Amino acid sequence: MKTMKAAVFVRPGKIELQEKPIPKVGPTDALVKITTTTICGTDVHILKGEYPVKPGLTIGHEPVGVIAELGMAVGGYQVGQRVIVGAITPCGQCNPCLSGDHSQCGGHAIGGWKFGNSIDGCQAEYLLVPNAQANLTVIPSNLTDEQVLMCPDIMSTGFGGAESGQIRIGDSVAIFAQGPIGLCATAGAHLRGASQIIAIDGNPRRLEMAKSLGAHITIDYSKNNPIEAIMDLTGGRGVDVAIEALGTQQTFESCLRVLRPGGVLSSLGVYSGKLTLPLDAFAAGLGDHKVVTTLCPGGKERMRRLINVVESGIVDLKPLVTHRFKLDDIEKAYDLFANQRDGVLKVAITP
Amino acid sequence: MKTMKAAVFVRPGKIELQEKPIPKVGPTDALVKITTTTICGTDVHILKGEYPVKPGLTIGHEPVGVIAELGMAVGGYQVGQRVIVGAITPCGQCNPCLSGDHSQCGGHAIGGWKFGNSIDGCQAEYLLVPNAQANLTVIPSNLTDEQVLMCPDIMSTGFGGAESGQIRIGDSVAIFAQGPIGLCATAGAHLRGASQIIAIDGNPRRLEMAKSLGAHITIDYSKNNPIEAIMDLTGGRGVDVAIEALGTQQTFESCLRVLRPGGVLSSLGVYSGKLTLPLDAFAAGLGDHKVVTTLCPGGKERMRRLINVVESGIVDLKPLVTHRFKLDDIEKAYDLFANQRDGVLKVAITP
Amino acid sequence: MKTMKAAVFVRPGKIELQEKPIPKVGPTDALVKITTTTICGTDVHILKGEYPVKPGLTIGHEPVGVIAELGMAVGGYQVGQRVIVGAITPCGQCNPCLSGDHSQCGGHAIGGWKFGNSIDGCQAEYLLVPNAQANLTVIPSNLTDEQVLMCPDIMSTGFGGAESGQIRIGDSVAIFAQGPIGLCATAGAHLRGASQIIAIDGNPRRLEMAKSLGAHITIDYSKNNPIEAIMDLTGGRGVDVAIEALGTQQTFESCLRVLRPGGVLSSLGVYSGKLTLPLDAFAAGLGDHKVVTTLCPGGKERMRRLINVVESGIVDLKPLVTHRFKLDDIEKAYDLFANQRDGVLKVAITP
Amino acid sequence: MKTMKAAVFVRPGKIELQEKPIPKVGPTDALVKITTTTICGTDVHILKGEYPVKPGLTIGHEPVGVIAELGMAVGGYQVGQRVIVGAITPCGQCNPCLSGDHSQCGGHAIGGWKFGNSIDGCQAEYLLVPNAQANLTVIPSNLTDEQVLMCPDIMSTGFGGAESGQIRIGDSVAIFAQGPIGLCATAGAHLRGASQIIAIDGNPRRLEMAKSLGAHITIDYSKNNPIEAIMDLTGGRGVDVAIEALGTQQTFESCLRVLRPGGVLSSLGVYSGKLTLPLDAFAAGLGDHKVVTTLCPGGKERMRRLINVVESGIVDLKPLVTHRFKLDDIEKAYDLFANQRDGVLKVAITP
Repeated sequence: MKTMKAAVFVRPGKIELQEKPIPKVGPTDALVKITTTTICGTDVHILKGEYPVKPGLTIGHEPVGVIAELGMAVGGYQVGQRVIVGAITPCGQCNPCLSGDHSQCGGHAIGGWKFGNSIDGCQAEYLLVPNAQANLTVIPSNLTDEQVLMCPDIMSTGFGGAESGQIRIGDSVAIFAQGPIGLCATAGAHLRGASQIIAIDGNPRRLEMAKSLGAHITIDYSKNNPIEAIMDLTGGRGVDVAIEALGTQQTFESCLRVLRPGGVLSSLGVYSGKLTLPLDAFAAGLGDHKVVTTLCPGGKERMRRLINVVESGIVDLKPLVTHRFKLDDIEKAYDLFANQRDGVLKVAITP
Repeated sequence: MKTMKAAVFVRPGKIELQEKPIPKVGPTDALVKITTTTICGTDVHILKGEYPVKPGLTIGHEPVGVIAELGMAVGGYQVGQRVIVGAITPCGQCNPCLSGDHSQCGGHAIGGWKFGNSIDGCQAEYLLVPNAQANLTVIPSNLTDEQVLMCPDIMSTGFGGAESGQIRIGDSVAIFAQGPIGLCATAGAHLRGASQIIAIDGNPRRLEMAKSLGAHITIDYSKNNPIEAIMDLTGGRGVDVAIEALGTQQTFESCLRVLRPGGVLSSLGVYSGKLTLPLDAFAAGLGDHKVVTTLCPGGKERMRRLINVVESGIVDLKPLVTHRFKLDDIEKAYDLFANQRDGVLKVAITP
Repeated sequence: MKTMKAAVFVRPGKIELQEKPIPKVGPTDALVKITTTTICGTDVHILKGEYPVKPGLTIGHEPVGVIAELGMAVGGYQVGQRVIVGAITPCGQCNPCLSGDHSQCGGHAIGGWKFGNSIDGCQAEYLLVPNAQANLTVIPSNLTDEQVLMCPDIMSTGFGGAESGQIRIGDSVAIFAQGPIGLCATAGAHLRGASQIIAIDGNPRRLEMAKSLGAHITIDYSKNNPIEAIMDLTGGRGVDVAIEALGTQQTFESCLRVLRPGGVLSSLGVYSGKLTLPLDAFAAGLGDHKVVTTLCPGGKERMRRLINVVESGIVDLKPLVTHRFKLDDIEKAYDLFANQRDGVLKVAITP
Repeated sequence: MKTMKAAVFVRPGKIELQEKPIPKVGPTDALVKITTTTICGTDVHILKGEYPVKPGLTIGHEPVGVIAELGMAVGGYQVGQRVIVGAITPCGQCNPCLSGDHSQCGGHAIGGWKFGNSIDGCQAEYLLVPNAQANLTVIPSNLTDEQVLMCPDIMSTGFGGAESGQIRIGDSVAIFAQGPIGLCATAGAHLRGASQIIAIDGNPRRLEMAKSLGAHITIDYSKNNPIEAIMDLTGGRGVDVAIEALGTQQTFESCLRVLRPGGVLSSLGVYSGKLTLPLDAFAAGLGDHKVVTTLCPGGKERMRRLINVVESGIVDLKPLVTHRFKLDDIEKAYDLFANQRDGVLKVAITP
């Protein structure tokens, strides 16, 4: 049996590189040889034991690679093609998928997120892709791996936050937290035509990056009260859309406090502990507020569109890749990324 | 100076009939002689001091009457016409109104609700209607006052809950609480083509009424655990839309617990105290859930459509009027209604 | 090699029952033994040579049957289960499907319509279902074949016309032509909460049926000018939504002539010859009109919802089945149906 | 009686500067002293007699000016404020306006377009603004007249074409004709996140301008067949959205021919003569195509958003103003503009 290297969750606090068998390909699967991948904030939650997965699971859900083998029922692709696969891999054929709820594939919550969650992921030499017909997107030859590395998750998620917010041309939008997801939400707000994009974070370098991605105004919450600042910037009106990109009570609540009546709170964060709706900011339920959550849209069509965005040059997310590691050094990469050292935003991992 | 009788908020616990001057008509106003009105659950919150209004304010926001006088800038109407006016009276001309957020008129939360909240209401002999051009709807001569009495608030609010839920043909919908608003939400779910409408309450008479308005299944929460029952009825799938029509943590939370991933929690209740999102039912923010609140849609076009519904006979809300009082006896009416005695649903008050 | 009977298109004017091999099942297919099917207006177009298909093709796209065999990659079903399959069979996994354009599966126009169009159909003893995972819906045991026989096409199409029209509660809707599709559009308008449904046809029995399915007013165009009548009925306002259910210049144009500015013309007909937009009724392109076409929505989730509607009893389409034939007599059935004899609406065909 | 200069339609072929009385201000009006205005393609249609208006009418619907007088019922503004007013002036209070159909104000087609159509327009020293409460937008002091001169019509219309097309991030969009409206539609497509914007025209300078406003690819139809080129550029897929910005059968038809099944034809042109839907490109009505028309959105909220866009700098439309004239020379301006001489795009007229 052939084996491969894979970053495996052992127990809370421990992800390590192990040898595992290269997966066998069923009729609707594809096997992808990974050429580049990355680490996500969610992977850090897994590492820390905050998001539970089964010991022995290969982690990672942001794959770039080459088709190594195709199931007998998969058509229209060829071995050797360079592809990306979304972090979320909908089957396209279950009732929720056919209803448009691809991220909730199968009908249980978060069902569309399989890689590194319910099945083995892509921080490995090979990745088995289920429902491959719905999930392989060929990469144009003029784009590098790193250029499309953000498509599978953070670009899809961040843009999704802007899309779910139903931003209109000329809207005011606030985005709380400018980590990789928040930065992509900022870029997404720019792509939808917002004319006043306010990015909030405590890290000056991230705020600088936010400006380069479309933010018109940045607020360092360690220096200014963002709620007061935003109400001031909007002439007391509040923003049309507030995007939460961290997953804390404070940022969630701040979103609601700067949101105009009738506005949309578009939530991207993964929350833990308790989440409370402050009734004063929620107008006791009478403010026509909307709270919308978005799990990273996946599937090959979504990936195709995101690759189009990359290729067109209307957004440039390459600067988000700040560090590079070999798969052999992935434990070091986790250490750097989990501890947010050296201004890290995203790392590129190459087997 | 001519005077009229009006039900006035004096202090928490005290609404009484007083003599007040008949209001003067400005250029964009209309004066309506009230012929029928009613009491709303919100009025009871005001009476109890749970929703604060200024002492001296006339209460009431569900007017049926006759045009007594028209401002010089109001056109297309005649003195003597029978009209209804919505509980919410948008100006139609401010930025939020022009953006479609009529219920948040003026841009501050709940700004569209004026009668018996920020200006004098309609539990009186006369009502001054601001922005009359946008808010008077003529009643067809073949309809009685009582037939259209539910249009200004509960019908608009309840239907609005169904509309905001974006119910599709063939959806499963649960409606928690079958007071007047919940009953109208049940009727609204029926009007949108839901094929499995589940109504929850603890009052058998209300559940009976729910059935007559379109509920396919009723659950008496005092006898069965509604969450288990609904998950069972939907084969573990959960409902597509859950409508909250009471305003408590428990019903809000139950909505989320029976909601499928990707579903909509359409909230109509007025909450007090604390409101928490249970993270397990909320999939930590990753379930593509939507929480949408709706304040009663108003304005003359909304009222026109609701009158059309009444006239067409596709919904019959007359049975909701269970008791009748003279305006002189309004304090008795409040006593009956606030204490939910004698199976009361809605009362008709006639000056 | 086992054979079966199948109604085959031979040449314009000739559909005949032939012996054909029972199809072989590939990994993603299912074989369904047909128990009931029907003839569609489109089949008559095929018979007449107005809609071209390849000689030798088995006709029919409205299958009810029993699973006879399942491909190795199809899960969650069992041989022997009673199922329906939509007229349109999306794969769920191509780019258009993943984008929500299931009826345009594959990306070429009308690509989702396969049965009796691009592959063999269901007027036969057996039907091979492609992409079976996305297209089999189990029939509840309490429903008969005939009760769900309308789901695969006319119910889905007719309701789709109402859905695409974005009917709101209290809307006025006109439906031009009350054949099987138009009748279902009338039922669909009723399910969406229209309060003034105006059905137009020249056949009194169909108009009678329209009333039983939700029409408030019927217009016999042989006795009254429907345009004048509708403008009169709406007080000169025009309807909010006009549904075209025949496929002629005259009905299309009439739709536009009775449509209010800003309204939706929802088109279901299959047009031939020329189709012109009358510029006066189209306000030279400045009336904010929308013209929306809808090809029958398919896939197992759509079928599930439609079965839910049947089961709930909120619509009863059984009366549409006016005649019954054995498959052996299908040529007689075509003769009756194509010539619209004996008040036929839909025929049930049983192998 | 005080008089003013005004450009008046005399008869087909003749618009001349005349002296007219300065209008009197009613309770809901405002009088605006015009500081800058412009000429629209529609005005040329009027001049040529192709769009009929009453002789004696003052032409023009793109006003920038200063409030000179306010009606008694208009609040929140002050004499002396610099304002713009949309080309379309909804009342905000009629049934269509309250339903969101502001451009069809009053319920008759094109009802929202009043200036220079049904009432006197702004190619004059003074303009009477009806329903002023809904239609005055204050200009920030840091913006010049010319910077906001495009907001009232072409920016609102062109962006509206992109908005009605429901462009998604990563979409392919073709815009046929790159006159002022088409150029703004190109800018609008860019603002909505299209990643492949294809601009078609026969004028190289306009195509150059299209590139600067967001077009990724331009096609000179005098050199290349745009239909073949677009099908090629999209790999045979067709565009997601095609925008018509001229008003001819050929461009309308070309839109449909390059549109993918399920796509949106967003029409902005004013058509004359005949308009036919080519049934092959329309898939006989079965392609899930949508044809949507958009009349310039107006009202003060729309203008506020467009000014926000100008102020943010995300689009720069100043280069569209290619020529400047005094009001006294407006007949020369018409001559230049109507004959498209000297590379004219838009002219600025200052009284």
